Order: sequence, then structure tokens, then C-alpha cells
Amino acid sequence: MSQVKGDSMHLRNRAMDWGRAGGVGLILSALVSTAATGAEGASRESLAHAETLRNRALTGTSAMTIVTSLTTEVGPRLAGSDAEARARAWALRTLTAKGFAGVRSEPFEMDAWQRHDEGAEIIAPYPQPLAVTALGGSVPTPETGLLGTVAVFETLEDLKRAPAGSVTGRIAYVGHAMQRTQDGSSYGYFNEARTAGPSIAASKGAMGYLIRSVGTDSHRFPHTGSLRYQEGIPRIPAMALSNPDADQIERIAADKSDVRMRMWVDSSERPAAQSGNVIAEITGREAPEEIVVIGAHLDSWDLGTGAIDDGAGVGITMAALELIKDAGLAPRRTIRLVLWGAEEVGLLGAQAYRKQHEAALAQHVIGSESDFGGGRVWKLTADSQTEEGDALFLEIANLLAPMGIAPGSDDQPGGGPDLYPLIAAGVPTLRMHQDGRDYFDLHHTADDTVDKLDAAALDQNVAAFAVFAWLVADSDVTFRAAAP
Amino acid sequence: MSQVKGDSMHLRNRAMDWGRAGGVGLILSALVSTAATGAEGASRESLAHAETLRNRALTGTSAMTIVTSLTTEVGPRLAGSDAEARARAWALRTLTAKGFAGVRSEPFEMDAWQRHDEGAEIIAPYPQPLAVTALGGSVPTPETGLLGTVAVFETLEDLKRAPAGSVTGRIAYVGHAMQRTQDGSSYGYFNEARTAGPSIAASKGAMGYLIRSVGTDSHRFPHTGSLRYQEGIPRIPAMALSNPDADQIERIAADKSDVRMRMWVDSSERPAAQSGNVIAEITGREAPEEIVVIGAHLDSWDLGTGAIDDGAGVGITMAALELIKDAGLAPRRTIRLVLWGAEEVGLLGAQAYRKQHEAALAQHVIGSESDFGGGRVWKLTADSQTEEGDALFLEIANLLAPMGIAPGSDDQPGGGPDLYPLIAAGVPTLRMHQDGRDYFDLHHTADDTVDKLDAAALDQNVAAFAVFAWLVADSDVTFRAAAP
Repeated sequence: MSQVKGDSMHLRNRAMDWGRAGGVGLILSALVSTAATGAEGASRESLAHAETLRNRALTGTSAMTIVTSLTTEVGPRLAGSDAEARARAWALRTLTAKGFAGVRSEPFEMDAWQRHDEGAEIIAPYPQPLAVTALGGSVPTPETGLLGTVAVFETLEDLKRAPAGSVTGRIAYVGHAMQRTQDGSSYGYFNEARTAGPSIAASKGAMGYLIRSVGTDSHRFPHTGSLRYQEGIPRIPAMALSNPDADQIERIAADKSDVRMRMWVDSSERPAAQSGNVIAEITGREAPEEIVVIGAHLDSWDLGTGAIDDGAGVGITMAALELIKDAGLAPRRTIRLVLWGAEEVGLLGAQAYRKQHEAALAQHVIGSESDFGGGRVWKLTADSQTEEGDALFLEIANLLAPMGIAPGSDDQPGGGPDLYPLIAAGVPTLRMHQDGRDYFDLHHTADDTVDKLDAAALDQNVAAFAVFAWLVADSDVTFRAAAP
Repeated sequence: MSQVKGDSMHLRNRAMDWGRAGGVGLILSALVSTAATGAEGASRESLAHAETLRNRALTGTSAMTIVTSLTTEVGPRLAGSDAEARARAWALRTLTAKGFAGVRSEPFEMDAWQRHDEGAEIIAPYPQPLAVTALGGSVPTPETGLLGTVAVFETLEDLKRAPAGSVTGRIAYVGHAMQRTQDGSSYGYFNEARTAGPSIAASKGAMGYLIRSVGTDSHRFPHTGSLRYQEGIPRIPAMALSNPDADQIERIAADKSDVRMRMWVDSSERPAAQSGNVIAEITGREAPEEIVVIGAHLDSWDLGTGAIDDGAGVGITMAALELIKDAGLAPRRTIRLVLWGAEEVGLLGAQAYRKQHEAALAQHVIGSESDFGGGRVWKLTADSQTEEGDALFLEIANLLAPMGIAPGSDDQPGGGPDLYPLIAAGVPTLRMHQDGRDYFDLHHTADDTVDKLDAAALDQNVAAFAVFAWLVADSDVTFRAAAP
């Protein structure tokens, strides 16, 4: 998951609000009545297939094998790098071996940021090394690094309120108090310190920028992630401290007025680097031009092997497609798996896809991405704009309920970061909300490796994606309001 | 805690064997009877003071403040380094401020190993970086590193059984399956792969040596620790992989025959470097020449800030001494706090102390070191050789029992690694057995930082040390058998 999740909060909320509109009683009675009377929008046969898919998934899927293969055979796969190219080769090889239709890579070009070297140390009053990493996109420091005193701000808001020039020639540090949340909702707020902070600090005169990692663990893993320099403001080097090191800086600063430190980054940008989205399909038997999109992003940050972000999503959605194919099922519409490239650095693959498929977007029925780690799904939301869409959503919810998944309300359309460009183009989405209480322990760190994943939890996700993709693709239900 | 713990297993077992000799019934009745009838070897007044010390400790001690101060103001403090010298300065300053008697440093010289740079990567079949660290004492590689294929051994025993010359020109890798234990007892077995492994590998022709970290976590923190090169065998560079990276190597090797990798270490030895033990005392009122030794080691590995190894022990034992002093108590004998230098690299401070205090060792009544992290004490053992020693041990056990500490049997004299030279010279020891189930998650890693400690658990340790040190020092009880 990248930093841009919160960017589409301004989009109009068209989500069905199960919690508020009808109350739990209405939902339950709807669930019961559709279960008792059979399908509205989905045939009895289609529902029976969905139930079979769900049950098969719960006995074990290929999801863990897929993530293990990707994270072992490719490992870290930074957007635009040779490693990301190897990931595309891995995906093409794997998808072809599984016998899917339309396996292909859709290339695009990008400026690729590269990390070469980095570090930081306290010089005074208490000399010691710090566990630190450059934020993605950070400009390099001079070769000897930046040497300066630290200006400590408890929150980004405090930095915003600092008078212009008040941190001139200093390294601005911003902390925070991010807590664990099940829905990951606080990330949008706290990661502004990472994305917008560098330019805010520079606008106040800072020569370098440092944050407490946007993460919930207390290990010495700094969390990287993209920054966004603002036009017209000097670009200053920006890094994240691990949480224990941020504690250390704050402890020393609270006791002594001046913390003097050195930080260094060596990084570069490679223009016109190659990236691409990798696609595979089960072709629709009646309306192949109508597309249900599932997927995950193929790139990862360079520090870990990208198992939770987003190898898990790759495993879940590829295994769901495989489950449907191996059941010998041919849905009415096409199910398209998109393994998005260059998500972490600004949804570049998703933007390229939108451009490349502009003419076909009206026939994109609905989309969902898996990009929140390997935790179990606990809530399901969708932004249907039609009654038949609502009814089919209830069928899906009814089949997922035995796995502990409840239909819920949501304040905004979602479905995964890579769907934002499609949402902006009017494509409806459905979102499988995963339990993310541990997600930000590992997110964007060197510790994001496959040993952290649980196969049974992945299988529960696969079951949910297979039921959803199958039922929508096998129907003729539309989730979009008719054009005015 | 260093690697030499298991080295003294050959020492004769003189421990009182509570479990086997008398059975639980005997222990309990002994506890009850001493509680009911009052002291044998400790006066009623002395016991009352001990109870007061215990209860005060449980309301909060200075232990956490001390560890926080050491790990913040000094941070990592590798044996023989400038940082270890700063740790001695910190200790002298802190102990003087607390008003103890006899505050001093007792210097010695040593060869100091230094880590400058290190790394490793898989070259083929799946290029990617590895999380790795040099073992303490490793010789450097050539500047371009070592490039070679990996010979995988599941256990050290497998490597030992490999024919001579069978790994010539390769990098030998040794794995293991260390489990969590409460008493840490499996460490002695598994760390032989780290200590003895490099020379065993070299004797079979290996050009480099790599182990799965001797640790129980699944984070990307490699665990360092000393190796011991054997005389007459070529010294080869030796490193440890984090456990997830060891999984990765084993996974690839199981699937593909050849893993080709590069590893590099830059390190050096500085001869005649300065180290030292730092000492503080409460002087005995009647027999100041009789010494009860408590303490912990002041040095740490260079990767973390040495909070669990062994800042915790420094905090616990210093706080225990402070508790006794602040209660205005003057024991019969001297209580001596020794903050040992250069423990991690071979008990150098302990060996220097033995030499420097040779003439006074017969008057060292008993010793105990705290060097197993910050977990609660759950068992108490001692190697008393006298009936009055046994009786006083029961008094101590009786006072510690309400904190969940039971007297137990032990297969060997203990009391902490730095006491081994004293044990060899005949000094009896008492050991506070701490719960170490999590200890090897953090041990010798960059993640050994103060946020991992629990103040209440430290306070329980302080209570135990204060009761023990006070009761023995305020008595005239001897734990040694009379000379033959």
C-alpha cells in the first residue's frame, strides 16, 4: 500500500451505508430472505458454484506458495528497477504455467528512484549510530552528509505552525503517536508527515528532514515510503528513524537543548526506466468485453522482500483466479487479474492502465484490489449505485458471513489504491477490509518477509475474492447508475 | 551474556539439589519452620530489614532510570572502544552521585576488535541482498569480498562429519532449530555453531563461514557474538544471517543445487586498547574485608544499545545497592558492585579482576551477577557447601517466595558468566534465574534497546538482589567448606 490512499477522500461517497441506512435488522433480514428465496441477480447455479469455490478455498489454496515463490525468487522489487522487471518475468512465467488467458505485460516508462547508501548518527551530546532510512524519492545529501542541530516537533501540525525561517540551517524532526487500528484509517492522517513534511520543513528553512517512522512497531526497522516534494520549494534530503531511535532523539532533546547529528543519503533518479502491469484473464463466455478487475501490486519497497506489501495480495488474487479456473468454471464476463507496477511511487501502473484502457473503462463492471497485507477480511463494502448491485452485494455478503465477514458502511469508495484512477473514471469498487492491526508493524520495512504470513488467513481472503469475482462475473448485474 | 556460559560445565556440581535431595515437601517444611521459628544465621532484625527492602523495591526502584540513562547517554559500548570508556565515565559519575563508597575504575588492557563494514548478497540463482552481520572477532574479507557457492549443513554436527576438503573453496553455512527455553539452557549447545564453527569449517577447506543467527526471533536482525578461532587453522571470515534470511538461503538451496553469494567484512584489531571494571561499595561495619559481590557487565555488542545485555543487569544491581544505602543500612560485611568490562569478548574484565584481587579471593563470601535480560526471576539456586549456608539460603528463598521465586536445583554452579573465574578460584555463587523465553529474540542484535524492558519486572529483580545481598552481608555465615 502506498501513501496515496487518503488522496481520494474528496471523491463523493457513493458507498452503500449498511450500518446507517437500514440498521442491522434490515441487513440480517435481507440476508435471510435472499438466502431463503434464492438469487436476485445471481442464478441458483451460480450461487452454488460460489459456495463450492468458497469451501474449496478454505481447505487450502496456492496463495502462500505464490507469495513464497515471488519473495524468494525475486525478493525486493523497487518500481522501475531490474528487480521489478524480474518480477514481471516471474509473473508472466507463473501465469502462463497456470494456463490463464491473455497473459501479457503492458509496459510504461517512469523516472526510477534508487537508494545507494544512507545513515545517520548523533554527534553530540551522546555520540551513537541511528537506525534510519531515506524516504523514497529523497534527494541525496552532499557526500559528507548534513551536519546540524535537530529542531524537534511533536506533530506535523507543530511544524506547520512554526514561523518561517525558524528552523533555518537545522534538521527538522517530526514525531507522532500513531496507534494500531483494525481498519488502518489513521495512516492517511499520520503519513502526511512523510509525504508533505519535507517541503513544509524546507519552506521553514530546514536543510534536512527526519521523521519518526510511520509504523506501530517498536523494532529498529525504519519505515520508508514515498515523499512528495512541492513545486517551487527547495528539495531537502528526508529520512525516517526507527521508532526506538525516535524515542532516543526525543529523550535526549527533552533533557538537553541541542542534539547535533549527521545524516547522509546517496540516491539517484534514472529517467525513462521500464515498468509495466502484468495481466491474466479468464475470458467471459458471453460478454468477454465486460471486465471484473481483481489484483494487487507487483512492485515493493527495496528494504524487505515485499511479502505483506504486496506479495500477499498477489498470492490472494492470483490464487482466487486459479481456484475459479481449476474448478472448470467459465463466467459470463471476463475476470481480469492486474498485477500493478510501480504502485509505491505514486500509482504509476494504475495511471498508465487508465490511459491505455480509456476506451474500455465504461465496460469495467467493478474492481477490487488486495493491498493491506495478509490479515483476515472482517468487513465488506461496495459502492453500488443500483438496486440490482445492492442485491448482488447482499448475495456476496451472505456467502462470506460464515467466515466472519460482515457487510459494513464506509465513508468513501475504496477497493485498493490502484483503483483510485479507475474510481475517478467512474468504475465502482468493492473492498475486502482486512484486519490491519499488525500491518504497520512491518509496512515498508526490511522486516516485510514471508515468514510473517499465515496461510489459513490468506486462504480466507482467497475465498472472499473468488466468491466476489465469480458471482459478479457470472451475472449481468450493473453497479453503475444509468447515464443521466 | 557472552558465549562462554557453557564453558564451565565441567566444574564440579556443588549446587544444593533441592529438587532431588529432599523433595518438595522437605523444602516447604523447611521454609515454614524457618519462617515460624526465626533466623538461623540471620538475626530477626536483619530479616525484618530484608523484608522492608523487598517491599520498598516492589513499589518502584531506580533500575529503569539507570538502564535508560546508560543506553541513552552512552548507547552501544563495544569492549575496548571509546564508547566503553564513556560507559566507565558514566558509571563513575553515576555511582559517585549516588554517594557509594570506594567508587573506582580498575583498568586493564586488551586487543579490541572493531567492525567497520559488512554485507552479503545472493548472486545466483535469485539476486538479492541479505541481512547479515560479522561475528565478533571475524577477520576481514578481501576488499571485493568473498564470492562462492554455499555448502548447506542443517547442523554443526553435519559439518563436523563432512569429509576433509569437502567444502574447499566454498562458503559453509550451518543452520539449527533453537527453541525458546525459560532457562536459556539450549544456548550453550546451539552457540557452538557460532563459537567453534568457523574453525571447523576452515578445517574442511571452507573459505568463508555463515550461520543462521543463534536467536529465537523471526525478524531481520542478525545476531552477532564472539567466535573463537582455533590455533593452527586458517582464520576465515564468519557472519550470521537473520533468521528470515537463513530461511531464504535454505529454501533456495533445497530447490536449486547451487546458491552463489558474495559476503564482505571490514574489521580490525586494536592492540593494547583500554578497558576496565568499575566498582562501588557499601563498606561493611564489622568485617569490611569480607566481600559480597553483585554486578553486571558494562560492555555491550555494537549493534544495539545493550539494554537487555546487559544494561538491565547494571540497572538491577546498581538499584539494589542504592536501595540498601538509601535505607540507611550498614551491613556487617562489604557489598561490592562490580560493573565488569569486556565480558562479551571473553570475560576479560572478570579475568583481570581475579588477577588483581587474587590475595583477597578467600574473603569473597559469595557472588551473583545479573546477565540474562530483564525478565522476572522464577528460580533461585546456590552452591553452598555448609549447613549454615543452606540455612541462610532458605531464609533468602522464604523472603523471595511471595514474588513467585522458588528455590531449585541446578546442575552446575552459576551466578553469571563474569563469576566463572571466581568460581574456578573457589568463590561460591548464588543465581537468580530469570525468565529468558524472549531473551534470545533480542540478544546481540540491533534491536536490543530500552523500550523492550518492563520496569516492574526489573523491580522484582532488584528486590531479589537486595534481599540476598543484604542478608548475606549482614551475617557471618560462610558458604565454603572449611579447608581440608
